[in-house]
Amino acid sequence: MITLKAKHASGEYPIYIGSDLLHNHALLRRHILSQQVMVVTNSTVAPLYLPMVESACSSFSCGTVILRDGEQYKALSEMSRILDSLAEQQHHRDTTLLSLGGGVIGDMGGFAAACYHRGIRHIQIPTTLLAQVDASIGGKTAVNHPQGKNLIGAFHQPEAVIIDIDTLKTLPEREFRSGLAEMIKAGLICDHQYFSWLEKHQSQLFARQPDILIEAISQACQIKCDIVAEDEKEAGKRALLNLGHTFGHAIEQCLQYQHWLHGEAVAVGMMLAAELSVQIGWLEKSALQRIEQLLLSCQLPTQLPASIQNSQNLLNAMQSDKKVLNQSRRLILLKGMGKAVISDRITDDQLRDWLDVKLRSCGLEITRHTAA
Amino acid sequence: MITLKAKHASGEYPIYIGSDLLHNHALLRRHILSQQVMVVTNSTVAPLYLPMVESACSSFSCGTVILRDGEQYKALSEMSRILDSLAEQQHHRDTTLLSLGGGVIGDMGGFAAACYHRGIRHIQIPTTLLAQVDASIGGKTAVNHPQGKNLIGAFHQPEAVIIDIDTLKTLPEREFRSGLAEMIKAGLICDHQYFSWLEKHQSQLFARQPDILIEAISQACQIKCDIVAEDEKEAGKRALLNLGHTFGHAIEQCLQYQHWLHGEAVAVGMMLAAELSVQIGWLEKSALQRIEQLLLSCQLPTQLPASIQNSQNLLNAMQSDKKVLNQSRRLILLKGMGKAVISDRITDDQLRDWLDVKLRSCGLEITRHTAA
Repeated sequence: MITLKAKHASGEYPIYIGSDLLHNHALLRRHILSQQVMVVTNSTVAPLYLPMVESACSSFSCGTVILRDGEQYKALSEMSRILDSLAEQQHHRDTTLLSLGGGVIGDMGGFAAACYHRGIRHIQIPTTLLAQVDASIGGKTAVNHPQGKNLIGAFHQPEAVIIDIDTLKTLPEREFRSGLAEMIKAGLICDHQYFSWLEKHQSQLFARQPDILIEAISQACQIKCDIVAEDEKEAGKRALLNLGHTFGHAIEQCLQYQHWLHGEAVAVGMMLAAELSVQIGWLEKSALQRIEQLLLSCQLPTQLPASIQNSQNLLNAMQSDKKVLNQSRRLILLKGMGKAVISDRITDDQLRDWLDVKLRSCGLEITRHTAA
Repeated sequence: MITLKAKHASGEYPIYIGSDLLHNHALLRRHILSQQVMVVTNSTVAPLYLPMVESACSSFSCGTVILRDGEQYKALSEMSRILDSLAEQQHHRDTTLLSLGGGVIGDMGGFAAACYHRGIRHIQIPTTLLAQVDASIGGKTAVNHPQGKNLIGAFHQPEAVIIDIDTLKTLPEREFRSGLAEMIKAGLICDHQYFSWLEKHQSQLFARQPDILIEAISQACQIKCDIVAEDEKEAGKRALLNLGHTFGHAIEQCLQYQHWLHGEAVAVGMMLAAELSVQIGWLEKSALQRIEQLLLSCQLPTQLPASIQNSQNLLNAMQSDKKVLNQSRRLILLKGMGKAVISDRITDDQLRDWLDVKLRSCGLEITRHTAA
């Protein structure tokens, strides 16, 4: 087991990465302070891993909330079911909420933990690769709004993140590959060496070799921890973690959070950011080709979904994105491999023109790369 | 105009107290950083003061949300209307939300500001005495849940608090006197001198003399600022501000947040806390009489509402109160005038027995003191 320390303004928390951690009852119990525990999970994860967690919590008064599975349920109304359960079961302010599931569960459980009694203890137990390397770390919690992804939320740091890589054994292939997109992102932002390591170890990664998974996840978590520790509330550098996300969120919104997985949308978002970076002379074409190659090896999409045929739809969706500050558009672009920068030099008009050309030129090619 | 500085973990904000501040456009504009403003108010306050605030914001893109008036609407569903308006009008993360109204508006606007984009700027413009001396200061925001008052919320410090005492001219008498309860509370907690000052200046206060109002509000705000600065997240001392609130919230909940105003419930809560303090030998009977006398002068109730005839109802409501920590009950009691302490020495059984005796003994007397 590898243990990382994630620092934040008012303390730090451990991130445990290893095998068979859900059977390590002492590890979980160490972070529960009172007699009350509430496990939040979804209908897909519950039959697989809830019994293990309940067993670890057998000495506590342990409630459960089982939400519906899917990004389309990541909404205030669904989150409020968690609050209702906490309130109805008279959980006190020293209770502990455990989020057992993917990014949606972690985000909703975390947001409920942030709001209940104005903040209760939260432990993240991410069971998808995407949540393990990205969503579970850094204290961002949220639900979606019809007007934009993650528009409603809170910063609420967890007490611990427990990453049991054995949970990846049951993760569908497409979801696994969606998680790889966030790993690739971590390398692209600030660690060229990690990107190269991913290129080199891709076959072992696809085979989900435990030692390689632990190494790959730890490195991605460390990159995220370093960035968040410098800028917890996203006043500056943390925005780099949104590489591919401004486009990605807009794609997800245009598709009404259906059909595509988050990592798939981010993969296309990273490609668009890289292409735009080449266009303005910041990135070498050979770097773009390496990015595209790795994404394609991971069977991730690299082109906009066929249903988006009009740049205006995408731009409208981008308008409500959190990265838009004071009406001026901020994009995360690349000045090289492992060198992401925050840029506001692309105007809306330039972006529209560039997207229009792109959409016209790719034409039929688009459909070939879209996800199933 | 008096300006106080409220300190918190990541900075400080000004509290302005004076006359005619809503016409001081420069004061408000100083705290708005971007082109976007959203004013949150209710249907009672809007016709009175919204035009003034809109006029001060005429150079900005200014939206408004007018909520229904009343504690019974302080709920997640009503608060989400603010989020919907912000999202639909595409407010960005550097927008500013202004809460114009009483404590309910300040709490709901503040909570919406805490959640939208994980936190936007918030300015409190309290228009009731209760909100001016208590709710608008300290960054506590919340909505009620059927299971408990202020159960869902966030800590989110405002950028500024603008207290225009002219807004008190339109405040109904009963609401004004409800605000006096929180002032009395401030004195009882830690400032015997302020309590005596209130006793001495009560007639000028009831007459709403501007200079006396500014003095009284400033002192109450200063007391609250000092306590919050020491313990922003209520890990310890801040709980003292809940003097009278554990009982008070339970009363409100038993009455389904109708019929009684918050300050009225707190007045009875303070009396109960003082009586219990006398009962265990912590407080002189003469002190209790002074407290009762001042509350009665303010035409505030000092006895439980007649509809609560069973101690168990009250105890059940207290069970879900936030002040209950890890199953043990915490009460704020008095060790003297201006000497509130946090105590967990009263067991549930003792409390039930004491309440039962009280309820039996006051009998007919109860109805005489209840609010209209």
